[in-house]
Amino acid sequence: MFPKTTLPLLIFIFHFTFHQPPPVSASDPDPLQDYCLPSPHTHQCKNSSSLTVDDFTFSGIKHPGKFTNKFSGVPVSAAVFPALNTLGMSLVRADFEAGGINVPHYHPRATEVAYVLEGKLYSGFVDTQNKVFAKVIGKGEVMVFPRGVLHFQMNVGDSPATVIGSFDSQNPGSVKLPVALFGSGIDDELLEKAFGLKSKEISKLKKRFGDEKEA
Amino acid sequence: MFPKTTLPLLIFIFHFTFHQPPPVSASDPDPLQDYCLPSPHTHQCKNSSSLTVDDFTFSGIKHPGKFTNKFSGVPVSAAVFPALNTLGMSLVRADFEAGGINVPHYHPRATEVAYVLEGKLYSGFVDTQNKVFAKVIGKGEVMVFPRGVLHFQMNVGDSPATVIGSFDSQNPGSVKLPVALFGSGIDDELLEKAFGLKSKEISKLKKRFGDEKEA
Amino acid sequence: MFPKTTLPLLIFIFHFTFHQPPPVSASDPDPLQDYCLPSPHTHQCKNSSSLTVDDFTFSGIKHPGKFTNKFSGVPVSAAVFPALNTLGMSLVRADFEAGGINVPHYHPRATEVAYVLEGKLYSGFVDTQNKVFAKVIGKGEVMVFPRGVLHFQMNVGDSPATVIGSFDSQNPGSVKLPVALFGSGIDDELLEKAFGLKSKEISKLKKRFGDEKEA
Amino acid sequence: MFPKTTLPLLIFIFHFTFHQPPPVSASDPDPLQDYCLPSPHTHQCKNSSSLTVDDFTFSGIKHPGKFTNKFSGVPVSAAVFPALNTLGMSLVRADFEAGGINVPHYHPRATEVAYVLEGKLYSGFVDTQNKVFAKVIGKGEVMVFPRGVLHFQMNVGDSPATVIGSFDSQNPGSVKLPVALFGSGIDDELLEKAFGLKSKEISKLKKRFGDEKEA
Amino acid sequence: MFPKTTLPLLIFIFHFTFHQPPPVSASDPDPLQDYCLPSPHTHQCKNSSSLTVDDFTFSGIKHPGKFTNKFSGVPVSAAVFPALNTLGMSLVRADFEAGGINVPHYHPRATEVAYVLEGKLYSGFVDTQNKVFAKVIGKGEVMVFPRGVLHFQMNVGDSPATVIGSFDSQNPGSVKLPVALFGSGIDDELLEKAFGLKSKEISKLKKRFGDEKEA
Amino acid sequence: MFPKTTLPLLIFIFHFTFHQPPPVSASDPDPLQDYCLPSPHTHQCKNSSSLTVDDFTFSGIKHPGKFTNKFSGVPVSAAVFPALNTLGMSLVRADFEAGGINVPHYHPRATEVAYVLEGKLYSGFVDTQNKVFAKVIGKGEVMVFPRGVLHFQMNVGDSPATVIGSFDSQNPGSVKLPVALFGSGIDDELLEKAFGLKSKEISKLKKRFGDEKEA
Repeated sequence: MFPKTTLPLLIFIFHFTFHQPPPVSASDPDPLQDYCLPSPHTHQCKNSSSLTVDDFTFSGIKHPGKFTNKFSGVPVSAAVFPALNTLGMSLVRADFEAGGINVPHYHPRATEVAYVLEGKLYSGFVDTQNKVFAKVIGKGEVMVFPRGVLHFQMNVGDSPATVIGSFDSQNPGSVKLPVALFGSGIDDELLEKAFGLKSKEISKLKKRFGDEKEA
Repeated sequence: MFPKTTLPLLIFIFHFTFHQPPPVSASDPDPLQDYCLPSPHTHQCKNSSSLTVDDFTFSGIKHPGKFTNKFSGVPVSAAVFPALNTLGMSLVRADFEAGGINVPHYHPRATEVAYVLEGKLYSGFVDTQNKVFAKVIGKGEVMVFPRGVLHFQMNVGDSPATVIGSFDSQNPGSVKLPVALFGSGIDDELLEKAFGLKSKEISKLKKRFGDEKEA
Repeated sequence: MFPKTTLPLLIFIFHFTFHQPPPVSASDPDPLQDYCLPSPHTHQCKNSSSLTVDDFTFSGIKHPGKFTNKFSGVPVSAAVFPALNTLGMSLVRADFEAGGINVPHYHPRATEVAYVLEGKLYSGFVDTQNKVFAKVIGKGEVMVFPRGVLHFQMNVGDSPATVIGSFDSQNPGSVKLPVALFGSGIDDELLEKAFGLKSKEISKLKKRFGDEKEA
Repeated sequence: MFPKTTLPLLIFIFHFTFHQPPPVSASDPDPLQDYCLPSPHTHQCKNSSSLTVDDFTFSGIKHPGKFTNKFSGVPVSAAVFPALNTLGMSLVRADFEAGGINVPHYHPRATEVAYVLEGKLYSGFVDTQNKVFAKVIGKGEVMVFPRGVLHFQMNVGDSPATVIGSFDSQNPGSVKLPVALFGSGIDDELLEKAFGLKSKEISKLKKRFGDEKEA
Repeated sequence: MFPKTTLPLLIFIFHFTFHQPPPVSASDPDPLQDYCLPSPHTHQCKNSSSLTVDDFTFSGIKHPGKFTNKFSGVPVSAAVFPALNTLGMSLVRADFEAGGINVPHYHPRATEVAYVLEGKLYSGFVDTQNKVFAKVIGKGEVMVFPRGVLHFQMNVGDSPATVIGSFDSQNPGSVKLPVALFGSGIDDELLEKAFGLKSKEISKLKKRFGDEKEA
Repeated sequence: MFPKTTLPLLIFIFHFTFHQPPPVSASDPDPLQDYCLPSPHTHQCKNSSSLTVDDFTFSGIKHPGKFTNKFSGVPVSAAVFPALNTLGMSLVRADFEAGGINVPHYHPRATEVAYVLEGKLYSGFVDTQNKVFAKVIGKGEVMVFPRGVLHFQMNVGDSPATVIGSFDSQNPGSVKLPVALFGSGIDDELLEKAFGLKSKEISKLKKRFGDEKEA
């Protein structure tokens, strides 16, 4: 009636019954104050008297970031722009050389509104019924990528292209499918069955994206 | 125009005007990162490099917990399965010997979806208009108990019954009515009036459930 | 491999795959516009040009409601004060004759902040660890009842008492325990086991509160 | 014990007891499906098979809108770009001729992240402790305005300036203080007392901004 | 291809890639436990065994606060009544001498439901289309001010007036327009242009409200 | 100063200025009532008097669904079990023949808690830093997949395996990567560049998964 194996569990539960649940919490909803820039040591909000306007401005995306394979993406989450903490928003600057692509990816925690600063981009997304919505958009045009859907972009013009994306989360996260699938270490047999590829083909993909993961 | 009694209050308010509100926070909404297993000492999220797959699996409900009066309930909240912290979900395993009951109770912070692993259970809930919805359900059937409504179950079969319940909160809480009403120490006169019972009847109930509280 | 019993289910799923999920929705979060008074026929927000200040004021709790057993409670949810729709708040006026009680109850969808307009009330709540917090409070004092916890009040003075309660939901709901437990039709055997009462005692309670339900 | 004036109220409450609360709802939280473009007649989500990529792109802010007093603001909420419905985001294009200003205003339902496309702007906000955070920002720089705080911008360069702002609400709303205060019809005496201005001065302001309201 | 100016940024991003986002969080949504009174030193929830009913009652608004210009406002946020922490509600007591006003203001983070305890008040709000809704309300009447909209009150009776306001946030914040606009230090030129006032008029307003800010 | 191309836009904006935003809304947060089963014709909540306990129970996952490639998944969202509407939860039954897999996929709108009913499954997920967490779990064990992360399962035993998954959304959505990437119609060139595959290899994958999409 009372298996031995559950004893430690029950003691563990008892231990917690008279205490509060784990206190670390994190969320993206209504703020509780105007702003909350985290203090590195105490992990509390900094006193507002120690803040200046420079804490609320960000100059790090005036220029493109470092390019890899004709693409550069610089995320501006609360991690790099602490004023965003608790405010529920963040952004990204993406630059494409001619022919450069932003590989199929998704943001698990945010919708993205993308504004084209410069260039011509084949841009689109796939909804959860596997319907693709894609077209070429240009300077001054906006495309919206609903929360969590797969999306992608490719510079189809002859000159560089730049996009500013905004998110409704201070930390939207990003899952780049090629590397998440083939560069993370998922079991070979499962991948072979999932994609209908041969062992050798999977090995080649794994080598390619495993290396990228190291980079 | 300025009563003495409010002076301490005003000083208190003044004291806070130039500081931030109390920083302890806790919520069940969208996560801000993939996961956040609390570090016991710093109360921050553990570094992901220190985590393994075992942190995300839980083996404590393979078997029933300890039975009391033919019933055993093992809650699996973020307190016992820390990976659930910030993820907005938890679960429970409930086992019933023949004739065993899960007394009328409610979860203040979650809807419950109950899946019958084994057995035959009279199962139901009472909505806020006092309408009861109840029937006998069996293996493989599902019943939903909306957030905060009173619900209950009784094993009406001849063999043990088991239910797995899921919640949309990492800490749904549970209020078992008999003990909350009669085992918590609410004033006797109020209880007599509320239930139309005599002083002696209330005393008997209090003795029964006050003892249970101690257990 | 394909049991007959699941055929209708699969057809049902197929039917929905190419449509959107059920469109009726209801929630208590951030509003999407300043206000939204529902139009009875179209169920859309009324055009603001048809609204006047009288739509945003409510005069129905200037006086107590109808008393039953020395108690009167008048809820002011969005159902009676439509301006509250989508605004996430509501209130209640509760009046107590000398000795009157507000029976143990809880609100499944809201915290309550109670402000004593008049009188002396034994007032309290029971947390989910079955700890009771109760005391006598008087005119101008405030007590908070966390979301979903069991609470109660009793006029312990010689004159009438009045409380104004506010909620952080436009429809907090209210579950009065005596009638929900004994006036809703839960199976007798389960109640007998849950409260340790005899069949005859349960019948008496059911008669009392079943009648109340009819009233 | 039962004042006549509450009779209609009680009948009203009774009427609603057996119905659901008003069904019109509106919120800005997690979506329930990939997207939901409202169908004008049924007010349900359009069937996805009727949608094309053009529904998810917006070309209306390639160029500035109409200028009034050296300023042009074109909001792109879900009202003008229906794909944003339920996705929790929207944006705005603001253009300033030399010396043009965006008057002190706030968005009741959203944080704003402003990205400078072109020009030099004195840009800032006032927190709820009345501390001002302001400076001149230029092309490629970002400033964040927390939800609900008062903010403003002025083109301090010699050439046009343009800003793209993003919001974490599909309908952030905007309250322009000069017109909300002096162009809406608030009682003169209250405004005189609030600003310490003379009747004549208030009349002048009202004339100025009441006219603007008509425009 | 890799401008020097982005080097520090990239190093910063790299530094965070292998850590979690800033851990300070703050929100106003569903609670994760019954209550959470912050412990001053550890910033965790206090152990419930150390709490008494006095922690959940508040006596500081039995009487008016200190009057300034015939008005007194005593906010009861989680900062002064810690039991409100994580519970999503707070309140305020406002007292008006004859002729006293509550200047046009708004709460960036909450709807307000105002209940008139005593007196006659011209009370109203301005929606985001600049439509004013205002009238005189009296004892026992309720007015609702939607989240973030500008609102105001003036005692138009001959005797004192008192209002109890409730909010659906533990820290609604309050922006008093006269002082936020003219007492915070916004650039003179911008204010002149925004209000169509002369330099001298702005100086006078700034002097008046800058002094008030100091008070 | 006023380009012709924006005229239609401005007229469009004007048209909406005096109306409410699009009224179709959909979200997964706190319910506004006990439950809300949508009425097919009016799209309002059904009257509770027309509901029975059968509306709140679901018998459609007593048995596995139809198998395709040794795998069967039966989602139980609000679309098939309408009682879940507004309650923020849903579930899924997944059955695996020996060697069967649930291909790498993610749920854009929910965390999943998976409980193993039967069998031995290699089960895991990849976080947004591309770290894989995977192991073999068995009967009675639980694994949690955080919201939006890529996850997968493979029956590594010799007999059938069954999993019951719960979600904290009434419609979590599911994106199966092989078909979303190769069966949806994303431009070949983009896929070639993203995966480093040759045109012929992409064609083969597209043929395979485009066919699956048709099925």
